[in-house]
Amino acid sequence: MRLIVKDMDIATGGVQVVLINQEDARMLDLHAEDRLLVRKGRRETTAVLDIGESPKAVPRGRVGVFEEVLDALHAKDGDVIEIELGEKPKSIACIKKKLDGFELSQAEVVQIVKDITDDKLTDIELTSYVTANYANGMSMKEIVFLTKAMVETGDRLVPKAKIVADLHCIGGVPGNRTTMIVVPILVAAGLTVPKTASRAITSPAGTADTMEVLAPVALPKKRLEQVLKDVGGFIVWGGAMNLAPADEKIIHVEHPLSIDAEGQMLASIMAKKAVVGATHLLVDLPVGPGSKLKNKSEALHLQRHFDDLGKVLGIKMKVIITNGSEPIGNGIGPALEARDCVWLLQGDARAPKDLLKKSLKMAGMLLEFTGKAAEGDGYAMANGILRSGEAYDAMVRMIKAQGGKEPVAEKIQLCKLTAVVKARRSGTVIKIDDALIARVARIAGAPQSKGAGLFLHVHKHADVKQGDLLMTIYSDSQAKLDFALKEAVNKEVLIIQ
Amino acid sequence: MRLIVKDMDIATGGVQVVLINQEDARMLDLHAEDRLLVRKGRRETTAVLDIGESPKAVPRGRVGVFEEVLDALHAKDGDVIEIELGEKPKSIACIKKKLDGFELSQAEVVQIVKDITDDKLTDIELTSYVTANYANGMSMKEIVFLTKAMVETGDRLVPKAKIVADLHCIGGVPGNRTTMIVVPILVAAGLTVPKTASRAITSPAGTADTMEVLAPVALPKKRLEQVLKDVGGFIVWGGAMNLAPADEKIIHVEHPLSIDAEGQMLASIMAKKAVVGATHLLVDLPVGPGSKLKNKSEALHLQRHFDDLGKVLGIKMKVIITNGSEPIGNGIGPALEARDCVWLLQGDARAPKDLLKKSLKMAGMLLEFTGKAAEGDGYAMANGILRSGEAYDAMVRMIKAQGGKEPVAEKIQLCKLTAVVKARRSGTVIKIDDALIARVARIAGAPQSKGAGLFLHVHKHADVKQGDLLMTIYSDSQAKLDFALKEAVNKEVLIIQ
Repeated sequence: MRLIVKDMDIATGGVQVVLINQEDARMLDLHAEDRLLVRKGRRETTAVLDIGESPKAVPRGRVGVFEEVLDALHAKDGDVIEIELGEKPKSIACIKKKLDGFELSQAEVVQIVKDITDDKLTDIELTSYVTANYANGMSMKEIVFLTKAMVETGDRLVPKAKIVADLHCIGGVPGNRTTMIVVPILVAAGLTVPKTASRAITSPAGTADTMEVLAPVALPKKRLEQVLKDVGGFIVWGGAMNLAPADEKIIHVEHPLSIDAEGQMLASIMAKKAVVGATHLLVDLPVGPGSKLKNKSEALHLQRHFDDLGKVLGIKMKVIITNGSEPIGNGIGPALEARDCVWLLQGDARAPKDLLKKSLKMAGMLLEFTGKAAEGDGYAMANGILRSGEAYDAMVRMIKAQGGKEPVAEKIQLCKLTAVVKARRSGTVIKIDDALIARVARIAGAPQSKGAGLFLHVHKHADVKQGDLLMTIYSDSQAKLDFALKEAVNKEVLIIQ
Repeated sequence: MRLIVKDMDIATGGVQVVLINQEDARMLDLHAEDRLLVRKGRRETTAVLDIGESPKAVPRGRVGVFEEVLDALHAKDGDVIEIELGEKPKSIACIKKKLDGFELSQAEVVQIVKDITDDKLTDIELTSYVTANYANGMSMKEIVFLTKAMVETGDRLVPKAKIVADLHCIGGVPGNRTTMIVVPILVAAGLTVPKTASRAITSPAGTADTMEVLAPVALPKKRLEQVLKDVGGFIVWGGAMNLAPADEKIIHVEHPLSIDAEGQMLASIMAKKAVVGATHLLVDLPVGPGSKLKNKSEALHLQRHFDDLGKVLGIKMKVIITNGSEPIGNGIGPALEARDCVWLLQGDARAPKDLLKKSLKMAGMLLEFTGKAAEGDGYAMANGILRSGEAYDAMVRMIKAQGGKEPVAEKIQLCKLTAVVKARRSGTVIKIDDALIARVARIAGAPQSKGAGLFLHVHKHADVKQGDLLMTIYSDSQAKLDFALKEAVNKEVLIIQ
């Protein structure tokens, strides 16, 4: 069948699509989501069929072609192209099998991940896979297959070091920028630490957003390899690289329904560690009412799965369960958190004590775990590296290598507009609500506005007098500030008793 | 946030969509599939956000607007519109609940079906619902809720008659046009029979395709009510009406993965009977290796579910399990099947005996079931109505009322090009493969080409001599005919032993 190209002047940004009028589709016995072989001269590609109901979208005798297909065929508006029915991707049958409740083989999982990576699946097909994994669950075997397949379909870093340390926190606790402290301590101790971090999705700041206040975080792979060689570590945004690309496409269909299938989450995390060559991994599982993990039994369950997965993948694991019942650190929002970290690394008295303690504990564990410190000596060694300024120096080396300048805590730009929340009664702070703290900081403008967020003047168990400062909110818009303040005052963000 | 409209010049044909550049989306903290309130002056609508990666799709500061949204806002290219984050449809939370394995309440199912009907859900969200039903199964309560919700969200016919007869076959058997015989017999007996049929999706002909050879089948609701009043029955294409519109959208996402969740199939069938006011329903479940139901235990299982559902919905049901191991009738393809039916109704000796027998049996059951015939007298009464020509007269009245002319079997247009398949050995026909018969007829051009298909000269158990005619293939294209013939000869369509 020969049809005349209509240039749709749009890139789909994913799977290749062509659009045919519904009357033509009926004549040709074609259905939406069928695969078509599309040919112009000796160039050929496979596209997904979309069907247009009105002639306005595409009239009879024409085929609406989106940018990716035009590029593949070197075709332009008015060209004649040939179409015929092609075969659906092989992974469709595998997805059907998973939907029917059967366990998938390694070859089947590889096929699915390959087709996801190559943009061969439509949203309907990909969603079916993701929801099938969610509804039917994944076996440990399937999780391992998925992890390996994600590793193999993207770029990899191959550090020269025998020991490559890494850490991961499953998130949900505002502040909690331990990575920004632990990585420089480990680097100062001579370890190799290629830390890829994420940006905030639903939180006021991700580690990548916070590091970005101090240095560029979107670096190409080649540059990263050089930084790793020169400095021994970095803290960058993983999304800038093509590491485990299938993962982002899976998240794209998980996000609208807030599904986070456990198996997929495990595979996603472990794949991102495997691609940077991690040999020793510390995982932080904070537990608290506002965290991802609501109680200890959920955390213990996940801990077991991480341990099992580490064994199969040959990554040495330590999985710790921590207190996620209140924010860690004082600043919430990229710049405010970055300032906390700089203060801490510089030994400034204004640095948050809780962040210091948790970071030293985690750094100490990794130092012992990697053999840098003797059993029981890790915490002291980490503390020594921090106090001596070596950790700060290592951070400055990383910042400079990534393209930034030595930080000056006072010069970190915060938003100009501020509002304060004061204690309406005297008493003890018995609760700080993680989810509401995050909400107030996001309303104020974090993470898009780097200097927006809030600063906590008190922590849990603090005794306060009526009129004492509880928090300062920062925003660059009066409207946002007013709304954030209203939320902070009206909702029970801090409970005093 | 104010953005300038870019007219995308495309209708999405479903959910309302706007497209924003990824940099703007990041600034505004918006994610794909978020709902946006889109406003121009006093007009406002909710659209799904799609994110464009390249400025070619939509540059910063602009919003790509598809036809449905332009219409809703009365907006045009270059207009300034206001956008803000809206709320996701309420049904998203219900879908999540079903994904998590919980049973849905009536209110929740109604919410989902309403949002499906109103094009409020994206493919990702709708697919999640469909696959959740498939993977987790549906309770009888949920099936009833879904049926009722589908009935209530579309148009309905309200026949005046106290007894409204209907029949349904779950399909998979080529030929098998019993509806075209049973309906006129029942109408001749004075029953009201508003038969809405479907077109072929994967078969060589649906009842609607076959009836269309004799009369128009896409009639508006008002006209149908008149036909029903004047003649007592019709055979039309259900897709032309807005009956249970959610069903078609569900099928759209089921089709790519060939999922057919049992609960959804039951609800789909029963909803389409309930909307035409059926009080007495006969369901035909053919069992055979090429049919939808492969064995009797599957059929018995489905029979029980139909019976239960009928009780709850107040529709009197008879569910019969029939032999689906070979095609019924001789012609396969719309025109060839229509000719069989006309021969049969006219009492022509060339009419297929198997179709005659099965139709009389089914018509007889419905006559007894509705009280038109005494127990045990139905078959004879149906036979009498057929032999006397009353059934043929009723069919002619229906055809004319729908806008057709009295049929002349010899004038039914078959394709001009033919090819024959002959027996390569003498023996007995021990098998005719339903799926391969359907495939050959579809390759020849059915159902798009109404006169294409094949005619079976023999049936199962027939004794043939080498060189006897087995089938004649009809096509309007030599290429299609050659390919169909090749398939028919090379594959074991008919097995002689």
